[in-house]
Amino acid sequence: MFARRILATNRHRLLLQSASCRVISLTDNATSIDGGTGQTRSLHHERQHQSGGGGGGRGGSRPADSTPLSATAAVIFGGSLLTYLITEKIKKDSNSVYAKEASSLEQIRKAHDTVRKDLPEYTMDEIVKHNGPSAGIWVTYGVGVYDITSFVPKHPGSDKVMLAAGGAIDPFWHIFQQHNTKEVLTLLESYRIGNLRADDVVSTKDLHDPWSAEPKRHPILKPATLKPFNAEPPASVLVDSFLTPNEFFYVRNHLPVPEVDIKSYELEMENEKTGRSKTIRFPDLLKYPKHTVTATIMCGGNRRSEMMEVKPIKGLPWGASAVGNAQWTGARLCDVLRDMGVREGDEEGHVQFEGLDTDPTSTPYGASIPLAKAMDPRGDVILAYEMNGQPLNRDHGFPVRVIVPGVVGSRNVKWLGRIVVSREESSSHWQQNDYKSFSPSTDWDTVDFKSAPAIQNMPVTSAICTPASGETVQVEKDGYVTVRGYAWSGGGSEIVRVDLTADGGKTWTVATLDESEKGTGPGRHWSWSLWTAKIPVPKGQRGAPLEIVSKAVDSNYNTQPESFANIWNLRGVVGNAYSRVKVNVK
Amino acid sequence: MFARRILATNRHRLLLQSASCRVISLTDNATSIDGGTGQTRSLHHERQHQSGGGGGGRGGSRPADSTPLSATAAVIFGGSLLTYLITEKIKKDSNSVYAKEASSLEQIRKAHDTVRKDLPEYTMDEIVKHNGPSAGIWVTYGVGVYDITSFVPKHPGSDKVMLAAGGAIDPFWHIFQQHNTKEVLTLLESYRIGNLRADDVVSTKDLHDPWSAEPKRHPILKPATLKPFNAEPPASVLVDSFLTPNEFFYVRNHLPVPEVDIKSYELEMENEKTGRSKTIRFPDLLKYPKHTVTATIMCGGNRRSEMMEVKPIKGLPWGASAVGNAQWTGARLCDVLRDMGVREGDEEGHVQFEGLDTDPTSTPYGASIPLAKAMDPRGDVILAYEMNGQPLNRDHGFPVRVIVPGVVGSRNVKWLGRIVVSREESSSHWQQNDYKSFSPSTDWDTVDFKSAPAIQNMPVTSAICTPASGETVQVEKDGYVTVRGYAWSGGGSEIVRVDLTADGGKTWTVATLDESEKGTGPGRHWSWSLWTAKIPVPKGQRGAPLEIVSKAVDSNYNTQPESFANIWNLRGVVGNAYSRVKVNVK
Repeated sequence: MFARRILATNRHRLLLQSASCRVISLTDNATSIDGGTGQTRSLHHERQHQSGGGGGGRGGSRPADSTPLSATAAVIFGGSLLTYLITEKIKKDSNSVYAKEASSLEQIRKAHDTVRKDLPEYTMDEIVKHNGPSAGIWVTYGVGVYDITSFVPKHPGSDKVMLAAGGAIDPFWHIFQQHNTKEVLTLLESYRIGNLRADDVVSTKDLHDPWSAEPKRHPILKPATLKPFNAEPPASVLVDSFLTPNEFFYVRNHLPVPEVDIKSYELEMENEKTGRSKTIRFPDLLKYPKHTVTATIMCGGNRRSEMMEVKPIKGLPWGASAVGNAQWTGARLCDVLRDMGVREGDEEGHVQFEGLDTDPTSTPYGASIPLAKAMDPRGDVILAYEMNGQPLNRDHGFPVRVIVPGVVGSRNVKWLGRIVVSREESSSHWQQNDYKSFSPSTDWDTVDFKSAPAIQNMPVTSAICTPASGETVQVEKDGYVTVRGYAWSGGGSEIVRVDLTADGGKTWTVATLDESEKGTGPGRHWSWSLWTAKIPVPKGQRGAPLEIVSKAVDSNYNTQPESFANIWNLRGVVGNAYSRVKVNVK
Repeated sequence: MFARRILATNRHRLLLQSASCRVISLTDNATSIDGGTGQTRSLHHERQHQSGGGGGGRGGSRPADSTPLSATAAVIFGGSLLTYLITEKIKKDSNSVYAKEASSLEQIRKAHDTVRKDLPEYTMDEIVKHNGPSAGIWVTYGVGVYDITSFVPKHPGSDKVMLAAGGAIDPFWHIFQQHNTKEVLTLLESYRIGNLRADDVVSTKDLHDPWSAEPKRHPILKPATLKPFNAEPPASVLVDSFLTPNEFFYVRNHLPVPEVDIKSYELEMENEKTGRSKTIRFPDLLKYPKHTVTATIMCGGNRRSEMMEVKPIKGLPWGASAVGNAQWTGARLCDVLRDMGVREGDEEGHVQFEGLDTDPTSTPYGASIPLAKAMDPRGDVILAYEMNGQPLNRDHGFPVRVIVPGVVGSRNVKWLGRIVVSREESSSHWQQNDYKSFSPSTDWDTVDFKSAPAIQNMPVTSAICTPASGETVQVEKDGYVTVRGYAWSGGGSEIVRVDLTADGGKTWTVATLDESEKGTGPGRHWSWSLWTAKIPVPKGQRGAPLEIVSKAVDSNYNTQPESFANIWNLRGVVGNAYSRVKVNVK
């Protein structure tokens, strides 16, 4: 699995290095148009902002005119959804003349920078008008002009592409460079209708490269994507220690890592219910009582690669290591919110968090949690500035992140820039249109993201970390193989038992749970449990493949579902089926 | 399923009616001996106490010398464990000469009242000495003397039988009359070693019949056992209303229903942590702020009959209706405990509850919950005196019961007589050695009850209530069948989705959740969700059997396990696998 991913990454890196883009200055009047509202906004501003932000430490400031343009644009342009949709379309269009003609990688790489003499020329003034279904949806990339009208309506979610309707996609793809693939570029070219006048071509030359200041990472982290950086360690290192070393802790970034100067760092706070707002600085946070919580953080997409074996899923192919356990230290959020006029027992509403990491439209990463969780002293939500006794490192949210124990990783917002107490959930893409789960029969044609609640507490799960699938395992003298792994349940539930079987469920062995912190009370057990089991190897099994299976039971006596088939969901989240490894025994 | 149970009950009733016991006065020096400690205690006292208690309203008083004798004796003697163990032994002993000889029901019914001239006579003075493994374990029943030494050590749990070691089991079996079965009596006779001297035979004639004052029940309740009364309604009535009518609400009694005079009712309270104690009366409880909670209560053994299909289980064969939803009104336990010197945020320890229902040794029903749950204002634990706006009826705990939302039914102690704040869990049988779950490979030879936590929060579950298995269903004109059921999750989790399939998981239909109370905040959703789904009937299915399957997903995104096979446990609890009904469609 890792080998496959590394290969993919290397191939991707190669593409990036060899891609030669023809770049021309960004004209001041270059615009992008929100096709949904028809509102025109200057890209020039974002460029300046992005440049300033990336270069000198943003210190928590955000331009006053930061607009409500959906953060989803960046995700769609940058991410896997578009790639997925495009791949799907390519499958359908695989017989198209263009696909056959432009099969050479070199050819397609240059296509959008090459004038096609058989097609007409357009000015940006003309393109701007094609910003919606009635007039048609056009975009430009390089010198290419593309009519994607027919692409957009077919796919729910692809309406987010409308953020670039009537304008250039270059600034978006400059950030999210994974579009430099043969598949994506081939599809784009299939929509080509013309050439952009040379003077109007949008350059990204002056755009700050938001990826230039990414932190160094430990090589043990195996990246699923580099930009944004998403990586997990090999599963075998997880079971080495109850507290995961900071450098080995999985990294899930949605956007470039912001550079934050702690001296100028500001945390904006607003209580929409009272109208109160204030800004605090890092030293102010240190004045609150210091609170330490040992908590496991798990990505909502952990184990997605296993779910993908049932049916393809858009999203990073996480193994079982998008999880880690650490001691987090900081100020209790309820203490901080009390100073904002929120009373204990205030249940109604939400606490929204915004990161200092932003997309090309200056929209920050965002998420929210129920106010009840935030204000519950037993909820143990903290604004953390230390991880395992060290200041947070940049990948984990320096200088301040939220730790929401028991809750899906994506709500544990890093590089915290703003806290808003509100009657509403965060309007962020990641709260509204991602990190939700659906019935296995819900697909991209039928999904209604409003119909499902945003994931908060995570379900019970376990994973076998050693041996790994495919390994050949030496049976111990006493006829057993030793298996190790982790188990965890969200919402403060404790793991009470892990059962393993190597004979398809005929007999179950109960694992020994390693010594672990017992939490601070019922419903406040936030840490995983590492476990060890000695599984008897069925007679006559030597030399043959052996499937070892684990399932955990938590203190609510919830347990894992048996297979991924019946919990498959189009986002590939909350994948908590039995863990299964197939090994050979000798 | 119901039909089967009714037949079993009728057969049982028949046995009771026709059983003719020879009864002789209980001598004042009759004793039972606790084999574990060797402590001798008079049965006479219990008889007086039981008699007084059952006759005239106990009013919460309990004799000062009430001993710590385990309540388990009553359960073992009265209940299914002994029956189970005995049945198992009979299987093994089925070739014994005695089993073959005594095959006639009439013969075995009279056996313990018949002197066997081939065997010696013993006096009670002699029998009393045989109260432990070293001297042998003897018991008497009628005129029979039995050496059960070889039976006891074989079976974990059967050490509870030791409560009657060296004495008569007649008073116990007088209460728990289900021992009057051919199987139990046959096994007992196989241990016969002699005859009890006529003057020493223990009579139960003067023992008050604790079952004589049981309340009247609605005939819709189908009993699994009559004494104690355990009954559930047909599943189809559950989906008729969000609030289950009081008379239709399942009844789970472990002991006879006590008669309580509200005028003399007293609730004893003790804080072992501070040494404080006091007694309050019913009007005192009414002075506390009135708090109403809508909560589902579910028996830990709900759906056990489905789990039994995998492998036999001792315990009542509950269908899917050992559950109901009601509005409960009373005083908040945290308010009452605050007056006992317990501070909010006090997390360490437990709150023990004792009922006014007692076994033949005067040991009350008991259970405990974590103090953290009791003191959490968001835990919504109440001392309820109203159910759906009516005073509690006798079967549901008149005058006061505990309601612990989200938690297994057995902790919702009825006829509340005593509350103890303690560092320890309740030592009651039902807390320590029942209502726990184990690995499917754990059997009665290997179980260690200390190794598992007492069930508190219940896992997510759902059940199809209509149609019932075996029904023939008319497909609606549009090609669908309508399916209705309930879904619930413990611990305050909300049901977010119910998926159904009628084609083995190829396609899933999402049910419509009926309008229901939304709870009072995240993690405080205590009610079930009733749901309706229209399932497309696969083509060519008419006339053929159709399996309809439901699974629920809760707000922690936990879901049900697929089958009972891998969650089977020797107590048959927390049976929350997919609900499956097999119907014929026409």
